[in-house]
This record gives sequence, C-alpha cells and structure tokens, in this order.
Amino acid sequence: MSKLLEKAVAELARLPGVGRRTALRLAIHLLRRDPQEVSALTEALERFRSDIRYCRCCNNLSDEELCPICADTRRDRTTVCVVEHVKDVISIEATRQYNGLYHVLGGIISPMQGISPSDLKIDLLLENIGRGEIREVILALNTSVEGETTVFYITRRLGECPGIRITSLARGIGFGDELDYADELTIAHALHNRTEIG
Amino acid sequence: MSKLLEKAVAELARLPGVGRRTALRLAIHLLRRDPQEVSALTEALERFRSDIRYCRCCNNLSDEELCPICADTRRDRTTVCVVEHVKDVISIEATRQYNGLYHVLGGIISPMQGISPSDLKIDLLLENIGRGEIREVILALNTSVEGETTVFYITRRLGECPGIRITSLARGIGFGDELDYADELTIAHALHNRTEIG
Repeated sequence: MSKLLEKAVAELARLPGVGRRTALRLAIHLLRRDPQEVSALTEALERFRSDIRYCRCCNNLSDEELCPICADTRRDRTTVCVVEHVKDVISIEATRQYNGLYHVLGGIISPMQGISPSDLKIDLLLENIGRGEIREVILALNTSVEGETTVFYITRRLGECPGIRITSLARGIGFGDELDYADELTIAHALHNRTEIG
Repeated sequence: MSKLLEKAVAELARLPGVGRRTALRLAIHLLRRDPQEVSALTEALERFRSDIRYCRCCNNLSDEELCPICADTRRDRTTVCVVEHVKDVISIEATRQYNGLYHVLGGIISPMQGISPSDLKIDLLLENIGRGEIREVILALNTSVEGETTVFYITRRLGECPGIRITSLARGIGFGDELDYADELTIAHALHNRTEIG
C-alpha cells in the first residue's frame, strides 16, 4: 500500500470508533474532495486543539476567558447546573428549556480510574457559590455508582453553604421508551413517583 | 457553543458516516490527546491529499510514478486483475493469494451517474495489454447491472487482443454465510456450478 495512504489510514484509525476499514473509506473519500476542503478540515482541528480554552468560571470549552454562557447577561445567575462533561452542556442547551448557568466538573469521582474529588472542578463550584448569587444547584450527573458517589460528595460539601436548594434531574421512563425495555429500577422509581394526570 | 468547537464539529460532520453527534465525540476526544498527536493526524491527511499520485501503469494510489506493486519485479507480469477502486486492490492483497498485477478502472460504467467508458482507465488497460506480456485478465468487478455492463464492454474491447484468457471471480455462497440469508440468484448459481467433494 502507498505509504501516504498507510499513514493517513493509521492516524484516522486511532480515532475512537474508527477501525481500519472505516479509516480507509474516509481517506479515499478525502481524495474526492478539493484540497482546500481537506485543508479546512485539518485547520479546524488544529486550531480547535491549540486555541481552545476552558472558561475560568464554569470550566466549559470556550474561545475566550469566559464562555458564551457565562458572558451572557440574559442568563439566570441564580441557578447552576452541574454536569460531568462539555457534551452534557450541549445536550441540555439543545432543549432550549434551561436559562441558568452550567458548571462542568470535567469527570466524575471514580476510585477505580483513580479520579478523586481534587481532580474535578468542585472547589471552583464552591467558590462560585460562595459569591452569594446562586440559589439552586441542579446536579445533572449520570446515575452510575460513580455518579451517585459524586452527588453524595458534592451535596456534603454544599452543606457548607446554607440556603442553597439542591436538586437532581427527574428519573422515569423516557418519552418514546417502551416499558418492556426499561430496567426494573427505572420502572419501580417511575411507579413510586407517579404523577397525577390533568 | 465555542466557535472553535463548532467549526471542528462542522468540518468533521462533513465526513461520510459521521453525524453531528459523532463529530462532537471525535472533537472532544481530540482534546484529550496531545497537540502533537493531533498534528500528526492533520499532517498525515494534508500530505496524503496533496502528495498522493496515481500509478501511471495501473492507476492505483501511489507515492511514486509507479506503485509498489507495479514496481515489484517479483510479481507475475502475465496476469492483471481489473478492479473498480483502490479499496478492492487492498481487499485482494489482504488475502495474500494473488501475485499478479492490478488495474484500477476508477469506477464503473454507469449511464445513470453519467460515467461513460471514456471516464475509466480502459484505454490504459488495453495499452498495457498491447505490450504483449499479459496472458490473463481477471475481471474482479461487482455483480451489479453496471458491473456486468462494464464486464461486457471490456470483454468486447479485449476481442482486439487475441490469445488473452479472460476470467472472473467465482460466484457462490461465501464462507460463513448461511443459506437462508443468501439470495436466490446466488443459491441457483452455486447449485448449478456445484463442485465434487474430495
């Protein structure tokens, strides 16, 4: 095989979820594109990797020192939604139902993976809350053992800040989900927390 | 969303089979990699797109004027295997069962997509055969209507070169394929061309 092709395939195949076969298909596809289009792709990746920053307030990805959400004066500064990763911010923003601030932990407490509370942006969260504007903290973490551990830890630390409402996302059957595919814990919880119709 | 992230996601999402969600996952993944590793990826893609050439003899992808296969003096120069695309060369080479040359047409005759014989490297194939060394032409094209049309066209053109054996890949049930998933045409053909055991 051509060495240039081999190198391109090898590099593409290092991306998550991309095997050699897909990498080859992507490389061959790039041949059909204009060289300028390929340059647009590689420049976007280079600039993203080298110039991206983390918001000094909420740890979200940002082009500036403050991310567009923290810098937006129309957002509700009394509510902060705590998430694991940047992609969770994007998922929640896509609903257009939330107008508060975010706080990206950058992970979750996981002794198995050697991630301790000090590896996460928990101190920064408490610092932000300490400024006194925040009234509600929504803990929007996943319901894994690690997620529950992190919720427990943060809740205990928030005990230092009185008068703060701590909430979590509602658990239940997702819209469009079928009952026979839902797990028992979810169904039991949804049954226990059933809501009045009308 | 950060503009740098937005741009990287938009460019990645233009790749085939990559939606916005996958593009986002890839971009976030790149953040966890060293900047040098991201540069290795983008440089490999840039160099591949700008420096890759087509072998002047067989139209395969190549770093030099002649591809490694055409340049390899140990290959059997009396047999040429005609394929549609570069990826077919890679598939056949992966078997390690073929030691002849290749000829990459660069597509298949398709009036629907406006691809006529003159868009393919058929003249180059006849030119190579005209040099007199080739004794067998294996037509390893797909069994679509377009594939059959291309086989028909090339076979007719090869009538100009007497003494050449023209063959195609054997058709039948693939190893590991189950009979009830095979189509009727394949089963009928496999039955008709059944082989003696032992």
